[in-house]
Amino acid sequence: MKKEELEKARHSLAHLLASAVLDLYPDTLVTLGPAIDTGFYYDFEFKTPVSEKDFEKIEKKMRETAKQWKGFEESVISFEEAKKLFAGNPYKLELIEEINNKGEKITTQKSGNFVDLCRGGHVDDMSRVPPDSWKLDRVAGAYWRGDEKNKMLTRIYGLAFETKEALDAYVLQQEEAKKRDHRLIGKDLGLFVFSELVGKGLPLFTEKGSIIRRELERFIVDEEIKRGYMHVYTPEMAKVELYKTSGHYPYYKDTMYPVMKIDEEELILRPMTCPHHFQLYASEPHTYKELPIRIAELAKQFRYEKSGELTGLMRVRSFCLADAHIICKKDQAVSEINGVLDLIEYASSVFGLKKGENYRYRLSLGDRTETKKYYKDDEAWDFAENVLRSVLKERKAPFYEGAGEAAFYGPKIDIQMKNFAGKEDTAFTVQYDFVMPKRFSLTYIDETGKKQEPIVVHRSSIGAIERVMAFLIEHYAGNFPLWLSPVQVKVIPVRTNHNEYAKEVYNLLHEKNIRVVLDDDDKNLGGKVRDAKNQKMPYWIVIGDKEIEAGKVTLESRDSGQLGQISKEELVSKLLEEIKNKSAH
Amino acid sequence: MKKEELEKARHSLAHLLASAVLDLYPDTLVTLGPAIDTGFYYDFEFKTPVSEKDFEKIEKKMRETAKQWKGFEESVISFEEAKKLFAGNPYKLELIEEINNKGEKITTQKSGNFVDLCRGGHVDDMSRVPPDSWKLDRVAGAYWRGDEKNKMLTRIYGLAFETKEALDAYVLQQEEAKKRDHRLIGKDLGLFVFSELVGKGLPLFTEKGSIIRRELERFIVDEEIKRGYMHVYTPEMAKVELYKTSGHYPYYKDTMYPVMKIDEEELILRPMTCPHHFQLYASEPHTYKELPIRIAELAKQFRYEKSGELTGLMRVRSFCLADAHIICKKDQAVSEINGVLDLIEYASSVFGLKKGENYRYRLSLGDRTETKKYYKDDEAWDFAENVLRSVLKERKAPFYEGAGEAAFYGPKIDIQMKNFAGKEDTAFTVQYDFVMPKRFSLTYIDETGKKQEPIVVHRSSIGAIERVMAFLIEHYAGNFPLWLSPVQVKVIPVRTNHNEYAKEVYNLLHEKNIRVVLDDDDKNLGGKVRDAKNQKMPYWIVIGDKEIEAGKVTLESRDSGQLGQISKEELVSKLLEEIKNKSAH
Repeated sequence: MKKEELEKARHSLAHLLASAVLDLYPDTLVTLGPAIDTGFYYDFEFKTPVSEKDFEKIEKKMRETAKQWKGFEESVISFEEAKKLFAGNPYKLELIEEINNKGEKITTQKSGNFVDLCRGGHVDDMSRVPPDSWKLDRVAGAYWRGDEKNKMLTRIYGLAFETKEALDAYVLQQEEAKKRDHRLIGKDLGLFVFSELVGKGLPLFTEKGSIIRRELERFIVDEEIKRGYMHVYTPEMAKVELYKTSGHYPYYKDTMYPVMKIDEEELILRPMTCPHHFQLYASEPHTYKELPIRIAELAKQFRYEKSGELTGLMRVRSFCLADAHIICKKDQAVSEINGVLDLIEYASSVFGLKKGENYRYRLSLGDRTETKKYYKDDEAWDFAENVLRSVLKERKAPFYEGAGEAAFYGPKIDIQMKNFAGKEDTAFTVQYDFVMPKRFSLTYIDETGKKQEPIVVHRSSIGAIERVMAFLIEHYAGNFPLWLSPVQVKVIPVRTNHNEYAKEVYNLLHEKNIRVVLDDDDKNLGGKVRDAKNQKMPYWIVIGDKEIEAGKVTLESRDSGQLGQISKEELVSKLLEEIKNKSAH
Repeated sequence: MKKEELEKARHSLAHLLASAVLDLYPDTLVTLGPAIDTGFYYDFEFKTPVSEKDFEKIEKKMRETAKQWKGFEESVISFEEAKKLFAGNPYKLELIEEINNKGEKITTQKSGNFVDLCRGGHVDDMSRVPPDSWKLDRVAGAYWRGDEKNKMLTRIYGLAFETKEALDAYVLQQEEAKKRDHRLIGKDLGLFVFSELVGKGLPLFTEKGSIIRRELERFIVDEEIKRGYMHVYTPEMAKVELYKTSGHYPYYKDTMYPVMKIDEEELILRPMTCPHHFQLYASEPHTYKELPIRIAELAKQFRYEKSGELTGLMRVRSFCLADAHIICKKDQAVSEINGVLDLIEYASSVFGLKKGENYRYRLSLGDRTETKKYYKDDEAWDFAENVLRSVLKERKAPFYEGAGEAAFYGPKIDIQMKNFAGKEDTAFTVQYDFVMPKRFSLTYIDETGKKQEPIVVHRSSIGAIERVMAFLIEHYAGNFPLWLSPVQVKVIPVRTNHNEYAKEVYNLLHEKNIRVVLDDDDKNLGGKVRDAKNQKMPYWIVIGDKEIEAGKVTLESRDSGQLGQISKEELVSKLLEEIKNKSAH
């Protein structure tokens, strides 16, 4: 089945759903029902509430009806006819009014005895849709036309694929992804919480979650410093004027926090870091010898997200971006962008993410005809796009091009990361900027003593810490590698008479800054081990008579099972080595 | 001279200044002039502008006049007489009106032919004030009665001490303090900048300043974790409701940032961290076995400071506090507070600060009669005050008591740090809180299974990072110890033919994560060394023929001078050892 055919099948199934619902619940008002990426949905106003318990009944009716349906019969009807046909359904009447106002034709689609207001796009024959290739999925609330000021309707989602096999594969993947949901694992492992009093989209990291976060932060800061970045601290806010100067204000206004008036100043929480870094650069004169200057920061940023869009750590209202701005000469752009991609590929490899498999590149271009959205300078766009394209080609990097996806100040390379549920999202970006240097009058003195304008590469290396944490929780399914594990090893004495030796082992590891816990309560051994497993600890050590006699420890690994007896010295050096190497098993 | 006598002398000198000014500039309006900590001032409305260049003339007139003055003659005059006497001086008339409205007596003080509206408090005999024990200091603008809505007057400050020696010592100390001003050194060493576009009181840390900041942050975080703190991350903002629940809102409202409305929520930048940490604690149940729970954070906080009060890094509008809240049983308070003081004394000792010399303790008590300012619970206040007092006594810590200096929720111990100019300020605090646990319904289950209320110890260990940086810049006069130095060592080849070996040494140090720079330009050796000294680098290495021949390096220290030739291995281990030990020389 081709992509367009699948889309037609999904759209047809939406009609089938509406028809079955009307047969079963005749007083229901039908509204709209399109095809979507994984199937279809239809929004209803039910008089009696419907839940997922009713799916069996509805699906049965759908399958019966499908057998009776052939194709879809299109009719063009007059405004008056349409109003008569859908009398009593204010949703349809609103749509009819709109179509009529635009001077467009009003069309209906009929199949069986179900007639819907619809432009078309259906299968010719309903029997071409395999009956086992689709199923109803879930019920959700949805505002009429997505506007929260409107009435809340009931949306029924259905899944639909080419074949039963494709449907089963998708369902399996979703089930696995659900188990890996970072909100679920985050709760089970006690990594972060939300508080009604603090507010939506504002996570509080517990001790355990904070350990992971701090390890990630120190890892990327140290790595970037090693690679010649200047890591700085700049304020979370600035005068609104700064964003008017940068030109960000009109583009970002709607997602920025409200202005705060203090004295005679209008302050605002920053939605991005670049203007701050430009102020640092501009605080003293520079010569060509100093370039490139790479200014990096673990930068707090604030963007307004609608409460409906907030998702655990993935979409939050305040986040900390591993951000940087490279100010360099035009002829340094290629080597700098290569350096950034090297860093991104290195950091990803530390997390065990593979290029081409877990992520690929998107070359995001500007649509030059949209002069409102993109800065006008064809020559600069051509040059910048060619720089990015040639870097990707020379690296033989897996990439595709995305038109109209650029920043307003230049094209970019997006690192498109696939999550466990199969969804691809932009994780990090590398942007070529030829606009900001002008706006902020950034200059350097060249070899001949003349003032020149540098270019800027905006980039993130591991993205927002909150987001990469969410991603990694799901990627590892909570089984963090040793260097990221909140608890690295648990010491378990079999009985209380083994506590003393266990404490000795605990102290030895603690002194070496290994994150160790001692479980010396008078409890059952099985329970203590189970707890280590449930908490997804990478290692635990059992200490009983044999271990004390031999002066050794018995080590067990979450990932490799029983590792047998080893000496305490071996234990320490094995763990320290694994931590240092940031091994991903 | 006793303290009260000195105060009288200073007040008398203010009159003398006003008299001299009127003699020299008869059309001047005199207003008010009190004694202050270091001398006196008087505020004038001049018709012709006066500057520090005029001090010689004014001082000369003051000394002449002083010889003619004896004591001060007090008169009580009527409202009508007073208005006549000060006719044409709106400032004095405003004061007279006020005194009259309060029903108080109107008094004047006369000495020589100068009469001022004044309650008294002067020396009996002007000759008792040594003529060389005082001098005029500086001119500044000052609003009438400190209100920015009023007219700006000219304030002339004078210094006055018991003797010439005391005056000279003070002047010398101020000159030294001025040289150590962190704003000056911060600029010379390029540690931080401000930007007109970013806003007032919002410092941007350069690479160098950020290195110091990061070292301080990692030092205190690691030290606190070692001492059993859970280091967390919580959001910079919260719903206003959180601060209404905590009871902070009425006390802090005026210094908090404006409310930001997002969706249906009212968000506000946090002025303190405690309520966030309480939300973390309250996110799960606790038993007595888990206590004490020590929640720490490098916490961003936001307080509105008037633009006139902003001072470099010392007073800013957004700061990062090394904050913590210890939630414990009442009977754990003594040992927890001792633990906090141990940490504070340890951290201070790392910075080379001495107890009793650089800092002392203040036991800050609540004024129980002020029920608006302090939470009402006499028994709890008694208990908490006794806990803090007994801890200080048992430790034999140098301390004094300060009435009415407590937090609204309980008494505290303030660490009073003396800066180079001799000014004492609260650097860190340890607060005993018996109010918040009630407000936030914090509980734990005791040994018998019953719900109990814990107490909270609020504390900072090294205070706000910005502030401690300002203090340390002045304390070290920019000569940071090796572990805090932005550049730790500079490698200087004598001539370009020594560059290769110099690069080898540079690489060796760089690989060991020592912050090293290589100065291999074809420049004069003296200039290269001078630059290292000006930048206050702790070490530099000169490489010439002799060094290459011997395969060694010649090391020079900022603090200890020439250290002679040593091997590269010795160099590395010497530097690493000093960094690890955080030696303060």
